[in-house]
Amino acid sequence: MTIDRPGPAARRSRLRALLAERDLDALLVTDLLNIRYLTGFTGSNAALLVAADPGAGGDDEQTLFCTDGRYDLQSAAEVPDLRRLIERPCDLALVARASGRVGFEAHVVTVAGHRSLAEAAGRDAAARAELVPVSDLVEQGRAIKDATEIEALTAACAIADRALLEQIEAGGVRPGRTEREVALDLDQRMRRLGATAPAFDTIVAAGANSAIPHHQPTTAPLRPGDLVKFDFGAEVDGYHSDMTRTVVLGEPADWQRDLHALVRTAQEAGRHAAVPGVTGGELDAAARSVIVAAGFGEQFGHGLGHGVGLQIHEAPAVAAGSAVIIAPDMCVTIEPGVYLPGRGGVRIEDTGVISALGYQVLTMTSKDLQVL
Amino acid sequence: MTIDRPGPAARRSRLRALLAERDLDALLVTDLLNIRYLTGFTGSNAALLVAADPGAGGDDEQTLFCTDGRYDLQSAAEVPDLRRLIERPCDLALVARASGRVGFEAHVVTVAGHRSLAEAAGRDAAARAELVPVSDLVEQGRAIKDATEIEALTAACAIADRALLEQIEAGGVRPGRTEREVALDLDQRMRRLGATAPAFDTIVAAGANSAIPHHQPTTAPLRPGDLVKFDFGAEVDGYHSDMTRTVVLGEPADWQRDLHALVRTAQEAGRHAAVPGVTGGELDAAARSVIVAAGFGEQFGHGLGHGVGLQIHEAPAVAAGSAVIIAPDMCVTIEPGVYLPGRGGVRIEDTGVISALGYQVLTMTSKDLQVL
Repeated sequence: MTIDRPGPAARRSRLRALLAERDLDALLVTDLLNIRYLTGFTGSNAALLVAADPGAGGDDEQTLFCTDGRYDLQSAAEVPDLRRLIERPCDLALVARASGRVGFEAHVVTVAGHRSLAEAAGRDAAARAELVPVSDLVEQGRAIKDATEIEALTAACAIADRALLEQIEAGGVRPGRTEREVALDLDQRMRRLGATAPAFDTIVAAGANSAIPHHQPTTAPLRPGDLVKFDFGAEVDGYHSDMTRTVVLGEPADWQRDLHALVRTAQEAGRHAAVPGVTGGELDAAARSVIVAAGFGEQFGHGLGHGVGLQIHEAPAVAAGSAVIIAPDMCVTIEPGVYLPGRGGVRIEDTGVISALGYQVLTMTSKDLQVL
Repeated sequence: MTIDRPGPAARRSRLRALLAERDLDALLVTDLLNIRYLTGFTGSNAALLVAADPGAGGDDEQTLFCTDGRYDLQSAAEVPDLRRLIERPCDLALVARASGRVGFEAHVVTVAGHRSLAEAAGRDAAARAELVPVSDLVEQGRAIKDATEIEALTAACAIADRALLEQIEAGGVRPGRTEREVALDLDQRMRRLGATAPAFDTIVAAGANSAIPHHQPTTAPLRPGDLVKFDFGAEVDGYHSDMTRTVVLGEPADWQRDLHALVRTAQEAGRHAAVPGVTGGELDAAARSVIVAAGFGEQFGHGLGHGVGLQIHEAPAVAAGSAVIIAPDMCVTIEPGVYLPGRGGVRIEDTGVISALGYQVLTMTSKDLQVL
């Protein structure tokens, strides 16, 4: 008996249901991450025409994948289960072969690109496609992770945990080293542990710089007494982890300890509120109210979190005003922060998966205030 | 006396001439690299409305830059010479304030984005903007580099040269190390030498893998007798270098020596042909004909080169069929290659600047076959 791992075929099957709901005969997918999600292809040029009709054998025989000659061998290996076409430009090659109501990704296709598509769609009078703008159809599916995706996210989080632990144990976070050196060291450790790359530009922000939410590491050296904020992650199989921890170099001052405790309490409130059925806005409010009640609402100037997966920021939005309903198997970050300009800031962030049992944290590094 | 360094203001001034030619009152720029080029802004969210009218003092008083609150301080420092607006979404904020014939980047704005722009442009009946699609107007200017840009490109090439030299001198390219280890080592050396990042995913391809034009480094170890192909570069101030060299581990076989000599001769022919006035297609043919004459035309399956600057691939195209006229101060790569599947391949690539005196090579690493 073989156990099927959930993957591209199952994702296309779910997408087909959405196409049927919208009375579409096919969807032309041109966003490369959406193509990767739906096929497994990792190259830099492709298009995909997903047919609403599953075909007689239910094996997607009408769906057509297109790439160019550079990726002939690679796509044969990565996309063994679809009909392939080697031709460029890929999107025009596919739309010229389509007919009926064909959705296109209106949030991806440019105005100039649409003009070319419309020309190609009208070229063959017998099999003319009507182009229908749709937005975020594949992204909607991507918000709910399958087991294969959660496995990659778990691995990406484990690498980030391990890299930070190793760096701290090796004495790599110490006065005298610059923010840039510490960031580079952390990046190298993640790569050695198997990350394809850092998930985004690693943030190391020391002292007053820790009050800048998205600080870029400088050549400023870490100093005794500094808060040091790490915001970083690893990429594994295209999936990203995202974690923030704030440590202190030497015995913390009372205000540093209090600030850390406040943000930690808010982050815990967020984790407890992260259950299926709440909206992104309600989840944000659960953590934010703790910080507002303490009088620091103005010093928490960003959203509580975001979905994470093939992109570092993706659906669902977890911020004030977000009406999206949080559902099982969504992967979201929870990352409140309080920033005191000129003094320092604390942010604590986990990546985790929503489940009926609550928020399953994937970033396992301790959230105690670590004194180095 | 101060000497003005060429920069954003001069670039906007050249752009205004193009707007006037097209009878546009303004151009809404939403591509972030184009915004960086025209303003110096390096953040992740902005829009720019360049007025065709230079203003009474010629100081661009009608041009308006917009970003969000995260970048208030940063944009004040990076864009000191323009009126700034802090509001989001930036593109809609600007178009709502525009009137007359307003160009937008049709190759950048999505179909969904255009719908939002059109709504915002029509909101105020008194000052209604007519949206006019334009393509590649800023990119056209970016193809010709100014002195500030050439300085950054030169620095990026020098870092790549230095990193490879240091790695070779340190014995870092040797049998037993994996492609991935060698690539990571090279990346780290470039960062230590001041690169913001590698210019793209560094290629190290050994043995039969060197026959794969865009191979991704694996955990395969380098072996005695291997050809090892390096294709890599550094990013400095947003500008990219791009260099390929192929070395051999131990005394080369005759076929390896012959292959290297052939590609080197073709690359030299390309460099000699890279003078103002030729087309991109003619330049490609000058190098390709050498390889075709030797009977390896089928084994050189990609274009000769490409423009390089804020993007690793940008205008002008240097490939068969390119009608673009090569002009002074364009920065292009010249990178012929011959790939023998299952055996190995050789590619030799320089980044250089077109001048009246010929092709000024910026990547100075020797093109002799290095035997390590």
